[in-house]
Amino acid sequence: MPDPIDVLAIGNALVDVITTNDAAFLADHAIPKGTMRLIAADEAERLYAIMGAGREISGGSAANSVAGVAALGGRPGFVGRVAADQLGEVFAHDIRAAGVAFDVPPMVDGPPTGRCLIVVTPDGDRTMSTYLGACQELSAADIDDAAVAAAKVLYLEGYLWDPPLPRAAMRRAIEIARAAETKVAFTLSDVFCVESHRDDFRSLLDGHVDILFGNENEVCSLYQTHDLDAAMAELAAHATITVVTRSDKGAVVIAGGERITVPAEPVARVVDTTGAGDLFAGGFLHGMAQGRPLADCGRIGGIAAAEIISHYGARSEVDLKALVAARLG
Amino acid sequence: MPDPIDVLAIGNALVDVITTNDAAFLADHAIPKGTMRLIAADEAERLYAIMGAGREISGGSAANSVAGVAALGGRPGFVGRVAADQLGEVFAHDIRAAGVAFDVPPMVDGPPTGRCLIVVTPDGDRTMSTYLGACQELSAADIDDAAVAAAKVLYLEGYLWDPPLPRAAMRRAIEIARAAETKVAFTLSDVFCVESHRDDFRSLLDGHVDILFGNENEVCSLYQTHDLDAAMAELAAHATITVVTRSDKGAVVIAGGERITVPAEPVARVVDTTGAGDLFAGGFLHGMAQGRPLADCGRIGGIAAAEIISHYGARSEVDLKALVAARLG
Repeated sequence: MPDPIDVLAIGNALVDVITTNDAAFLADHAIPKGTMRLIAADEAERLYAIMGAGREISGGSAANSVAGVAALGGRPGFVGRVAADQLGEVFAHDIRAAGVAFDVPPMVDGPPTGRCLIVVTPDGDRTMSTYLGACQELSAADIDDAAVAAAKVLYLEGYLWDPPLPRAAMRRAIEIARAAETKVAFTLSDVFCVESHRDDFRSLLDGHVDILFGNENEVCSLYQTHDLDAAMAELAAHATITVVTRSDKGAVVIAGGERITVPAEPVARVVDTTGAGDLFAGGFLHGMAQGRPLADCGRIGGIAAAEIISHYGARSEVDLKALVAARLG
Repeated sequence: MPDPIDVLAIGNALVDVITTNDAAFLADHAIPKGTMRLIAADEAERLYAIMGAGREISGGSAANSVAGVAALGGRPGFVGRVAADQLGEVFAHDIRAAGVAFDVPPMVDGPPTGRCLIVVTPDGDRTMSTYLGACQELSAADIDDAAVAAAKVLYLEGYLWDPPLPRAAMRRAIEIARAAETKVAFTLSDVFCVESHRDDFRSLLDGHVDILFGNENEVCSLYQTHDLDAAMAELAAHATITVVTRSDKGAVVIAGGERITVPAEPVARVVDTTGAGDLFAGGFLHGMAQGRPLADCGRIGGIAAAEIISHYGARSEVDLKALVAARLG
């Protein structure tokens, strides 16, 4: 029997389809430049057909995080839904190749595999059109209760709180984790998620989630303030450990009365910030699963994030485990 | 050119598949009796296969409402998404046959048509398993701005606020209606919808919605109270006209400082309460579109609801227009 999974993530199983094009292309097809928007199946097919040749790599926020856990030497698993189609095969192959256990069978009936169609313009901007497809079909039946109970950390992606069926599945997974010794971690994902589900996200802090991730904008939106200190004071009133990521200013870990400042790791040149938050969370959770102190968890997150932004794409290109060992011991 | 649409609804395009079976069938397949739950495509296929022969009729809450508008002599339209499959044809045929304009083309790519699998047990209980499918693919691109602007009333279903893409489409439709002279009506749909989107639903009352429908449980949930009077006092503080349906106690229309009590219409025998709220809303909105006073709108809603619950199914079986004329003049 293989070792049990230590960090089990539930998230969107998306394939990133990345092409380069100019701003006129976006304007011609009425795609708002520099934004992320959700699209329907037919628009996804139409856009995919006209985008031209692209690179297809498995993506998704929590999936990127657990790929980071694997690169750091952990034993992660991923739960998300793909269809029995070409993009579904791409996703399953890539995430397994990254060292992540992925056992949810592809769907035969239902919508195609979700994809994030990314147009990179010459100014470096990324314009994303996301079709959720099979991701929206994740239900409680897809969650292996025993795997949740056996994991050290269950990690949930706020993006997946948006569609109703996966939302119910994640509520159920939280219940299973609470009844076991499994820590529950949650990322706010995006300001639009916080705006749509502020009540739910706040109530998760009342005894349902042990670790919360968010960037400055997300935690400010959670408490409808522009004052980061005010938001952090609200967060400190909860038993939940909150990790506030602050881009080149590092991160702050709020654990009850304690605030731990995590310095930003040095980066020679920022090439592509995609996946920075995902890898920070992955590194942090790997540290937690290893029983490291919170300050070390923050450092591991920072090291993984710094590596990711030094090149294109959300998958590490060096031996992350060795890098952390060299920097942190 | 045909007459313009007076009541334009945006909602779930669902086909109801109704079978009878015993409680043991539900227990054998771990389906919680008497509830409504969302299921994924593969579970929908599995359940459909084992349910046995059933009746298939077009359903969906707002779709039922506009079928009522048509039966009352109005000129309604419906916006919702189906797939190019057999159930999609059933939905489109039925709703057009009911006299509702329905022009959204069926989807070729993407998930199958949504369906509500209903098992009626010998005790009269209805156990519903809903697969949203193509309903979740409704996007802003499917909404005809000119039709929204030309309508007298835009009617939105709270159920459709749950999936993210239709939620964004409805926000956009509200903007178009506000910029025109189109009244916006919204139904809270279900307590679970209110619980998931309480913040959003409350903020809709701040200048976005002209008419709100809800039953006692839904409006109490909106303000997290068990006291109906307290909830109605909160509602009265908004410019939105609220219609609180109270089953056999009739309804209350709250319009600013004014409260209009609508008596329940007499019903010889209640056979099946399915669609009562839907038909009440349809009747009320038909009255609004005809420029009737609020008290009359309530009566028309009550008459349509009373007819529906006197027989099986959510489509009226008598000449509703004549019935209203006879009762109300």
